[in-house]
Amino acid sequence: MKQAEEKFTDYLKRKNHYEQLVGLMIWDARTGAPIGAVEQRADVMSTISSDIFSMTTSPELKELIDELKTKKDHSAVLNRAVEEAEKAYNRNTKIPADEYAAFVRLQTNAEAKWEEAKRENDFDIFKPYLKELVAFKKRFITYLGYEKHPYNTLLDDFEPGVFTDTLDAVFSELKSHLIPLIQRVSASKHQPETTCLFKHFPKSDQEKLSISFLKTMGYDFTKGRLDESVHPFAIGINPSDVRVTTKYNENDFRVALLGTIHEGGHALYEQHIDENLIPYNLARGTSMGIHESQSLFWEKFIGQSYSFWEVMYKELAAHGTGQFDQVPLDDFYFALNEAKPSMIRIEADELTYCLHIILRYELEKGLFEGTIEVDELPKLWNDKMEEYLGIRPDHNGEGVLQDVHWSSGDFGYFPSYALGFIYAAQINQVIRKEIPDVDDLIRSENLEPIREWLTEQIHQYGAVKKPKELIAAMTGGGIDPQPLIHYLTEKYTRLYQL
Amino acid sequence: MKQAEEKFTDYLKRKNHYEQLVGLMIWDARTGAPIGAVEQRADVMSTISSDIFSMTTSPELKELIDELKTKKDHSAVLNRAVEEAEKAYNRNTKIPADEYAAFVRLQTNAEAKWEEAKRENDFDIFKPYLKELVAFKKRFITYLGYEKHPYNTLLDDFEPGVFTDTLDAVFSELKSHLIPLIQRVSASKHQPETTCLFKHFPKSDQEKLSISFLKTMGYDFTKGRLDESVHPFAIGINPSDVRVTTKYNENDFRVALLGTIHEGGHALYEQHIDENLIPYNLARGTSMGIHESQSLFWEKFIGQSYSFWEVMYKELAAHGTGQFDQVPLDDFYFALNEAKPSMIRIEADELTYCLHIILRYELEKGLFEGTIEVDELPKLWNDKMEEYLGIRPDHNGEGVLQDVHWSSGDFGYFPSYALGFIYAAQINQVIRKEIPDVDDLIRSENLEPIREWLTEQIHQYGAVKKPKELIAAMTGGGIDPQPLIHYLTEKYTRLYQL
Repeated sequence: MKQAEEKFTDYLKRKNHYEQLVGLMIWDARTGAPIGAVEQRADVMSTISSDIFSMTTSPELKELIDELKTKKDHSAVLNRAVEEAEKAYNRNTKIPADEYAAFVRLQTNAEAKWEEAKRENDFDIFKPYLKELVAFKKRFITYLGYEKHPYNTLLDDFEPGVFTDTLDAVFSELKSHLIPLIQRVSASKHQPETTCLFKHFPKSDQEKLSISFLKTMGYDFTKGRLDESVHPFAIGINPSDVRVTTKYNENDFRVALLGTIHEGGHALYEQHIDENLIPYNLARGTSMGIHESQSLFWEKFIGQSYSFWEVMYKELAAHGTGQFDQVPLDDFYFALNEAKPSMIRIEADELTYCLHIILRYELEKGLFEGTIEVDELPKLWNDKMEEYLGIRPDHNGEGVLQDVHWSSGDFGYFPSYALGFIYAAQINQVIRKEIPDVDDLIRSENLEPIREWLTEQIHQYGAVKKPKELIAAMTGGGIDPQPLIHYLTEKYTRLYQL
Repeated sequence: MKQAEEKFTDYLKRKNHYEQLVGLMIWDARTGAPIGAVEQRADVMSTISSDIFSMTTSPELKELIDELKTKKDHSAVLNRAVEEAEKAYNRNTKIPADEYAAFVRLQTNAEAKWEEAKRENDFDIFKPYLKELVAFKKRFITYLGYEKHPYNTLLDDFEPGVFTDTLDAVFSELKSHLIPLIQRVSASKHQPETTCLFKHFPKSDQEKLSISFLKTMGYDFTKGRLDESVHPFAIGINPSDVRVTTKYNENDFRVALLGTIHEGGHALYEQHIDENLIPYNLARGTSMGIHESQSLFWEKFIGQSYSFWEVMYKELAAHGTGQFDQVPLDDFYFALNEAKPSMIRIEADELTYCLHIILRYELEKGLFEGTIEVDELPKLWNDKMEEYLGIRPDHNGEGVLQDVHWSSGDFGYFPSYALGFIYAAQINQVIRKEIPDVDDLIRSENLEPIREWLTEQIHQYGAVKKPKELIAAMTGGGIDPQPLIHYLTEKYTRLYQL
């Protein structure tokens, strides 16, 4: 038995090494790889991805899985690793290898085409690729089968065990509270004065602050680096190599500053996963939603908290160009938390954010149940924006083309963002019970106890514990949108004097 | 037969894809990968390297090679690919795997010990490791066999087909001309005033000039990028992804500017190799010497030519901080081409450079024919420095310990540096016959015809044609030091008014 376990972890470690290379290629492609090398890179990505695919589907692995399953007294970690390997084996043996390789190749090309389409503001450039991506995924669902709703098969890739029935219920509860709240906020006579947010803020100063914030959060620069990219992201190549990117807008410092805190939250998760989980292929986030709960916890419940700015406002002002000189902290804080419907999800405020997600969820669900066609997406997108947020995109660049996700075939991904916010609010509620002096810690720039609590409850386990287990262990309950609804209602009623 | 060829190129393409990933890892490690990730990266590198090794030694490959060899009417490209694959197979299977693994372990330790020895200025720290490295390599030569001279087997790794008989003849001809020429230069009363070279030159201006020079050379930024690194290098991940690095010294602009032109020369070679050679594993430089001929052609025969500075000096001065205001072009040009014996090879000027190489060649050859022992190296090194360049190192740190190459067991590598310069001078002579207005082209910043000529004669073929074939096709003759001797004699007689 010992021998089988060793062979099994050797196999998983090898797979992890290949996946680290995929991670490096992705990071490289998004931070300045030569544009002319896209095609060659797609070839290499296809080779390595199909090697990983072969590993997850090899008969030798299947034998090891079967052998390890005959005995039940393994560690929890080994059991979980076997379970995951078996799930992957089952998924991947049902999709024909050559079809999967073609899909991977399409992904890389489609991402380049999406970039072009977005730059040119022309959905038609991207449309044929999107259609192909959807067609591939529909065929994959046919191969894999589904329970209750075809879209559930896609959801399961990102948030295991959370399906359309849960999402329909949770999202409709959110909608029923948020749409009227947003309307009241928009109608309020008490509105923030936001001009200080949009004055010139030098890029080099934003960069210095971004680095300083990351350090305050506990991000370890000896195990990571900060770069610039069109679409900011964090990527954990392994727990000792977790890279963050941001983007600088000299007329809106929030993009970089809050964006960096957000990606930093993802990065803290990846940097604090137990390295001993690498040979079990479990040194990764357990789900997209839990991952997003980490980024959103730091961005919203720390970075947009009043106590954070009580201590940081002076530093911010020192790096600006005088725009905050006449602005009292309370006015700045109100401005920073302005809630106002806007076109771009990644720039959306916390009050309207979930509706951006619910819109995408409904479109994706429609695509995969066959009630919506790709051609209809631009119009439906705009219609829903108008219905939920009362605004309509002028062009597809600020509408259907805004996100990278679909260009890599990541359907079923978006709901995790809203789940992440829901989880984050649940975590925030618990953390403020268990560490009663959270605001004092923030004001003294001592965030280590908070980071440690998160590491102890979440980070260290990597993918050993599933989302619902983590939530249950922390809260004693299940997925619950009420803490989020409560947080938003309380905060925005107060700020806007409703 | 068709089927065997297809299987064979599939195999080679796959190997190339893995090698592209090694290239990406190397580039990443040298341009800012997190320091804390070194250990994980070494694990991944080890996995992928042993995969490549397995590919080159697989029985399936051997069968394909044998099958393809039974028929002789293949294309020249396929024949060459089979020859190379067989050479690699033989090399990698003749050395016992455990002995090779022990050698790799020794390399890592020896490199660390060399660093320590160099830091401590103490050859004795490195000596036992160097002895072991030499012993390993001698055994490897026994396993691999050799023709005429045991050192030839090592030379063949870097400069296929160029052996001790050629090198003895060529190097002794060089010595007989260069030693007296250097003595006359050193004795000349007419010496350059070089202070303008060492005044403050802002890094951002050096960067702008580096980019501008690369563009003028024809380096394609859509298929590459320029970064910073401690040791400048060019790396061809594939012909559409060829990256260059440089290093900026604000007190010596030449490091970045001439260094960038040098690496740009390497990069032009890699960018213009026919992409169709990838599946034959021939989309790479054909030898170290030919590669170096490309970097040195651009650095010495373009970047250090008078006509280049006739057009570029104004631009250089505009980016400087006034240091060139009182310096006429001729004085600047003399300073830039100062020739003066110095201890360190990588800082040597073009006149003295080859003697640094010849010294190393003679020592290496002696080691492997058994006429020189490792213990004797420091004294022999210093004696030869005195004999060839008239200077004697004060300590081994600026003598026998200065280069990294021996610590990783790279014997047989050094001669390629001098061969590269000899080739470059031969190429320069031909090019100036075939394109009679080279200086006019340089003065009009139209270097495209020169780059095109090099692509047609050299670049496009990748590793299809061997060094001697390329030289013969261009010059109608063999490896000939006379063009280099002529170039140096003419230039330095004129500059130093001999």
